[in-house]
Amino acid sequence: MGKNHSVPTDLFSQFVQHALDLAGIFVFAISGALLAVRKNFDVFGLAVLAEVTALGGGLIRDLIIGAVPPAAFTDQGYFVTPLIATAVVFFLHPEVERINTTINVFDAAGLGLFCVSGTIKAYDYGLNLTASATLGLATAVGGGVLRDLLGNDVPSLLRWDRDLYAVPAMVGATMVVVLIHFDALTPATGVVAVICAFGLRLLAMRFHWRAPRAWHRRSTVAEEV
Amino acid sequence: MGKNHSVPTDLFSQFVQHALDLAGIFVFAISGALLAVRKNFDVFGLAVLAEVTALGGGLIRDLIIGAVPPAAFTDQGYFVTPLIATAVVFFLHPEVERINTTINVFDAAGLGLFCVSGTIKAYDYGLNLTASATLGLATAVGGGVLRDLLGNDVPSLLRWDRDLYAVPAMVGATMVVVLIHFDALTPATGVVAVICAFGLRLLAMRFHWRAPRAWHRRSTVAEEV
Amino acid sequence: MGKNHSVPTDLFSQFVQHALDLAGIFVFAISGALLAVRKNFDVFGLAVLAEVTALGGGLIRDLIIGAVPPAAFTDQGYFVTPLIATAVVFFLHPEVERINTTINVFDAAGLGLFCVSGTIKAYDYGLNLTASATLGLATAVGGGVLRDLLGNDVPSLLRWDRDLYAVPAMVGATMVVVLIHFDALTPATGVVAVICAFGLRLLAMRFHWRAPRAWHRRSTVAEEV
Repeated sequence: MGKNHSVPTDLFSQFVQHALDLAGIFVFAISGALLAVRKNFDVFGLAVLAEVTALGGGLIRDLIIGAVPPAAFTDQGYFVTPLIATAVVFFLHPEVERINTTINVFDAAGLGLFCVSGTIKAYDYGLNLTASATLGLATAVGGGVLRDLLGNDVPSLLRWDRDLYAVPAMVGATMVVVLIHFDALTPATGVVAVICAFGLRLLAMRFHWRAPRAWHRRSTVAEEV
Repeated sequence: MGKNHSVPTDLFSQFVQHALDLAGIFVFAISGALLAVRKNFDVFGLAVLAEVTALGGGLIRDLIIGAVPPAAFTDQGYFVTPLIATAVVFFLHPEVERINTTINVFDAAGLGLFCVSGTIKAYDYGLNLTASATLGLATAVGGGVLRDLLGNDVPSLLRWDRDLYAVPAMVGATMVVVLIHFDALTPATGVVAVICAFGLRLLAMRFHWRAPRAWHRRSTVAEEV
Repeated sequence: MGKNHSVPTDLFSQFVQHALDLAGIFVFAISGALLAVRKNFDVFGLAVLAEVTALGGGLIRDLIIGAVPPAAFTDQGYFVTPLIATAVVFFLHPEVERINTTINVFDAAGLGLFCVSGTIKAYDYGLNLTASATLGLATAVGGGVLRDLLGNDVPSLLRWDRDLYAVPAMVGATMVVVLIHFDALTPATGVVAVICAFGLRLLAMRFHWRAPRAWHRRSTVAEEV
């Protein structure tokens, strides 16, 4: 169905790509299941939140580019992986909470991977460069937004008091479209984009980088949150 | 548009199927309108919540399988039925609240019906068995999740302190795909799947069956809900 | 892709139509960015809420009618306009808050415009009259609902204590389908529908028109909101 096959969608070999996808899905699912535990959900709530967090971003992208049925529903591995994450959190969540920092590192890796692979898939379906980068961002962060909506939280992505999360994904997605524009997207340069997004997110966590809020906001608007 | 017509989509005769669909839509719409009353919404809020609760699950399924425009927008009866439910709740809601148990029984019937018909429709559009069962579940419970999101509640589906709701729908959907796998899906066996899901939900309400939360959760994680 | 081109989709000349669309997108984006400031989001949260508020209604419509990729992702102007609104609110939000009434007038104009253009586009894609009017309404109000969901508010659209918002859009969308039914939709009559919806919303704001809640609701149901 893709209209434009000049892009190297086999950025990595198919096998490595799929293994990396499943790893990213796994860590995103862990973050969904952990929120479900904190929210006091039952085991089915854990599974729902794990599936939605892991697959939601790609699902949104696939609906928008018209890739139906979405990959989340055609690849059995995509469906089963979040269930494994659910089982891990269900039985071992105190241990999982304890290695929260490790999980955040893997989550950063998933962020880097998905912003790049999402951008490439969108471009491959014929979207323009701006739209492709936007959908790369949506692929990387969409699942987390849906997770927070189902947990009845303000999406942590939007809050000023959280370390930068969207910006590293934006940088990764933007690098990909710049590479495509200059016809320089290769497996090697794609990996560089993944590593840049991954590294930026690690730095943002390490040094608590945050984005500014609106200028002069305190002067006139009451705090409502 | 369906790719696979060997499945008996006319599980019931067209007329009976449509009448049952409308009955299911009606009771789901009642539950949406009742939440809107409790939330203090105006009459248009009632209508929006009734429509979304009744049609949201099927809408999600149709977008994912690529059945656009979704049935919710092509069948006038689907659109009008929730408006009738809105009028009933608007004028008679104290009486409707009083027969809440009766409504829950009908809601259980809608759950059983939609998990089966949703699974069949997804399979009919070419999805694999796992994906079909997942979408059958989504058809049955998706509208209730959207209702709770619009009402700014945590989806009751996910909460551990509610009687099992997703599990009966999972059982019904799983029965259908097992029947399809063994080439044994007929109107009679399809009805059995509906009745099993319906009966399980009734038993869950009668005996307050609940699903477990994560093991040892109290030991390390503060209650946040 | 449209199945039915007898409708004058070029209700206005292409250029004027596009300019009006961008104006509507701009004011919707301002309302999204202002909510983000009140919610204490950072600058990226402002941009996300501006984009979602401005483009969400049309995105929902396009997914439902099968117009993928949606216009929001194919028209660069649609994407860039909310970013300009974000910059305006980021640097000047006290001034923007001060002209809130002016913004509400523009928002009413966007409401009128989008309910009419959304209805026409849906009909143009082959939907029936009821569905087309529903999607015209969804185009006009969908972005605001998504904005409120992301801000973790009950959608203001549904609350009884807000001036009528959906009703003017319903009237505009209904006028369009009645005009189509009688084969009387022309640029002139289309503009009349826009002006009616716009005017009704202005009157609703001026005289604080509200819709009734369910009858006898106080007698039996506790206030929960």
